Amino acid sequence: MNASILSIGDELLIGQTVNTNASWIGNELNKLGYKIKNQLSISDDLNEIINSLDYLSSQNDVIIITGGLGPTKDDITKTALCKYFGAELVLDSLAFDNLEKYYQERGRTLTETNISQAYVPNNAKSLQNSVGAAPGTFYDLSGKYYFSLPGVPKEMKAIFTENIFSILKQKIESSGVTIYGNKLIYTTGIPESTLSDLLEEFEANNKQIKLAYLPSFKGVKLRIDTEGINLGEINSKIDDAIAKIKVVLFDYFIDSENDILTTVVNLLKEKKIKISVAESCTGGMLGQQLTTLSGSSNFFEGGIISYSNEIKNKFLNVSEQTLSEFGAVSEETAFQMALNCRIKFNTDYAISITGIAGPNSDYSDKPVGTVYIGIASKNDVKVEKFIFGKEREMNRELSCTYALKMLYNEVLNKINTNS
Amino acid sequence: MNASILSIGDELLIGQTVNTNASWIGNELNKLGYKIKNQLSISDDLNEIINSLDYLSSQNDVIIITGGLGPTKDDITKTALCKYFGAELVLDSLAFDNLEKYYQERGRTLTETNISQAYVPNNAKSLQNSVGAAPGTFYDLSGKYYFSLPGVPKEMKAIFTENIFSILKQKIESSGVTIYGNKLIYTTGIPESTLSDLLEEFEANNKQIKLAYLPSFKGVKLRIDTEGINLGEINSKIDDAIAKIKVVLFDYFIDSENDILTTVVNLLKEKKIKISVAESCTGGMLGQQLTTLSGSSNFFEGGIISYSNEIKNKFLNVSEQTLSEFGAVSEETAFQMALNCRIKFNTDYAISITGIAGPNSDYSDKPVGTVYIGIASKNDVKVEKFIFGKEREMNRELSCTYALKMLYNEVLNKINTNS
Repeated sequence: MNASILSIGDELLIGQTVNTNASWIGNELNKLGYKIKNQLSISDDLNEIINSLDYLSSQNDVIIITGGLGPTKDDITKTALCKYFGAELVLDSLAFDNLEKYYQERGRTLTETNISQAYVPNNAKSLQNSVGAAPGTFYDLSGKYYFSLPGVPKEMKAIFTENIFSILKQKIESSGVTIYGNKLIYTTGIPESTLSDLLEEFEANNKQIKLAYLPSFKGVKLRIDTEGINLGEINSKIDDAIAKIKVVLFDYFIDSENDILTTVVNLLKEKKIKISVAESCTGGMLGQQLTTLSGSSNFFEGGIISYSNEIKNKFLNVSEQTLSEFGAVSEETAFQMALNCRIKFNTDYAISITGIAGPNSDYSDKPVGTVYIGIASKNDVKVEKFIFGKEREMNRELSCTYALKMLYNEVLNKINTNS
Repeated sequence: MNASILSIGDELLIGQTVNTNASWIGNELNKLGYKIKNQLSISDDLNEIINSLDYLSSQNDVIIITGGLGPTKDDITKTALCKYFGAELVLDSLAFDNLEKYYQERGRTLTETNISQAYVPNNAKSLQNSVGAAPGTFYDLSGKYYFSLPGVPKEMKAIFTENIFSILKQKIESSGVTIYGNKLIYTTGIPESTLSDLLEEFEANNKQIKLAYLPSFKGVKLRIDTEGINLGEINSKIDDAIAKIKVVLFDYFIDSENDILTTVVNLLKEKKIKISVAESCTGGMLGQQLTTLSGSSNFFEGGIISYSNEIKNKFLNVSEQTLSEFGAVSEETAFQMALNCRIKFNTDYAISITGIAGPNSDYSDKPVGTVYIGIASKNDVKVEKFIFGKEREMNRELSCTYALKMLYNEVLNKINTNS
């Protein structure tokens, strides 16, 4: 079962919007077992839309179209679909009711332009939009499915999740064709080549599984690909593979569903552990990451962003002697930052990060990318030195990722020692 | 002059990598005046690559291909190009020298697999890669240009910037065709509909300019589109338009090149102003943003992440009475946070943010999305209340954006008053 995504909008072509819709939809289709054959981005142009539909239709069983459903004159997707499917626009009563409700709730008056959004091609089924004004549409052309969705990510996702997912699930499950499935494994602290060496034997003995290595500076992700005739078979093959890989990777294995941040946060919440942060080169990034998910007040007290030496001294009691003798980027400074942060914030753990994010050095002999990370617990402080790379944002992101990994190991160690 | 981008790689289709390469290249092509007709993503499949090249060639003068140039067997772009162009792979001596140097510098041994990267189709010109192992290639087929580049963003960008940009510039400038150009204007604090009302007269009187409204939660971006026969003509039309729009938008106009963050940072650096932050619901995000660009130690001292009430009291002297009487999310708390942060950090300005990021409320009667932002200067503290939306990350991002805008206005006011 081949599927394709057609993204409509000039802003995608000229680089003013990154096409996150396409990757979100790709991920959903892939979870369902569809093979995504291609993804095409084009401008809001009638002929372009029609030509592209021709091209994609010849190769695919399902086509998901996004964009061009707004009320203004740029938005011509519906006109193009009418022409392509030989249809006319008619007022859809469900869509109109939804639109009326949408405007009423916001205390706004429904204008003629707005009402145009409730018109849908007469050979399409309208798909209700629970979070916005423009309905989606669904065309079944002798078993070939077309869906048209708004380009606003929130609305696109809502309509897909509430209406389209189940239609596509039913289609592929009843088809009896070979379907594809995969899952990600998150690893941290191991380079791609070493990972692949470790898994050589696994790969040789598990030919029904294909591994793809996806390196990123947050750690290598492993994609486990397989095929089967239904999702149950695929999931069981994948679960077996994960169980085996987990044994091989041991400490480098983070989780098969969650990245290191979510994994740590879940652990802290479960164990009712409180933490604080003392950040220098990351400038608040670790705190920002830790508070991304709702409920972070359960484990996060706060922290000190000690960007200058004065603040390291004044708020975190890093002595002037330490700063002048060893420098702000040193094991000693990271040690004192973590130690004193934990005491001042009265938390179970404190994490310190101090480093040279770059691109310029700090005029010491330390290379750009040098970062010290400290973890203070009730009994001790551990500091590790890292030398990352030359790029500022990468160094900052890596610092946070490794800090989370160090905290994770430390908490797990403590739990294992105590139990 | 039409151009197209062909992105090769399974990871793009199944949503494991967002296609930032395509938007980066789109932006470059657009700056040069090319009309980007389409962008197609496909998997690493020989026939798929050839079919896609056929499809795109019929519509475009320039095709930029990315991905599939690695040393492993998945990477088949070069094989496909040989088949498509009727070529054979030959060892390119420049590429080989570069490869040898690349491996020597890293103290690694060149294997047979690695050497395969220095082979290029014999009817292509190789384009040297200054930051990686795989060279790019350039094919000129009777004036139709094809470029093949690695998928690694850093390498793709280096080869494009160092080799391709000038080739494409020369091609379009010597063609004499109508070319397209545009520029962005950043605005903040004004909704799309009001912005469009304000600019109605400008649009009516400047028909040679087209405005596109690009709303995002960081503020509406305005894209100014125009056409001409050379970049000089286009740039002068656009500069005139910006000068006129600036007058109309006045306070809502941020900059024509930079977003609010870069604009504020430049102002702080220029005026040698020092700042600090006191963050609650943003958890460090404002500090993280302010330290994104190199050289932030010139204006950023640090801050307090006061996520819990205890920390607001202990580190920022927000009185227990204030916290119990008005709550952590209140004008009074934001006031004290900013005031005391500035004093403790001894900075020219301090910014405080306290709010309910959501998705859950804080059990007060304040709605999710309520945020108080304070700006303390030497003479006073200003606090503004905002009610953003229901989504946590959006509320946090908006808090930072509006905090930057408030700081910007405050600094400008002070400069204007003093001068």
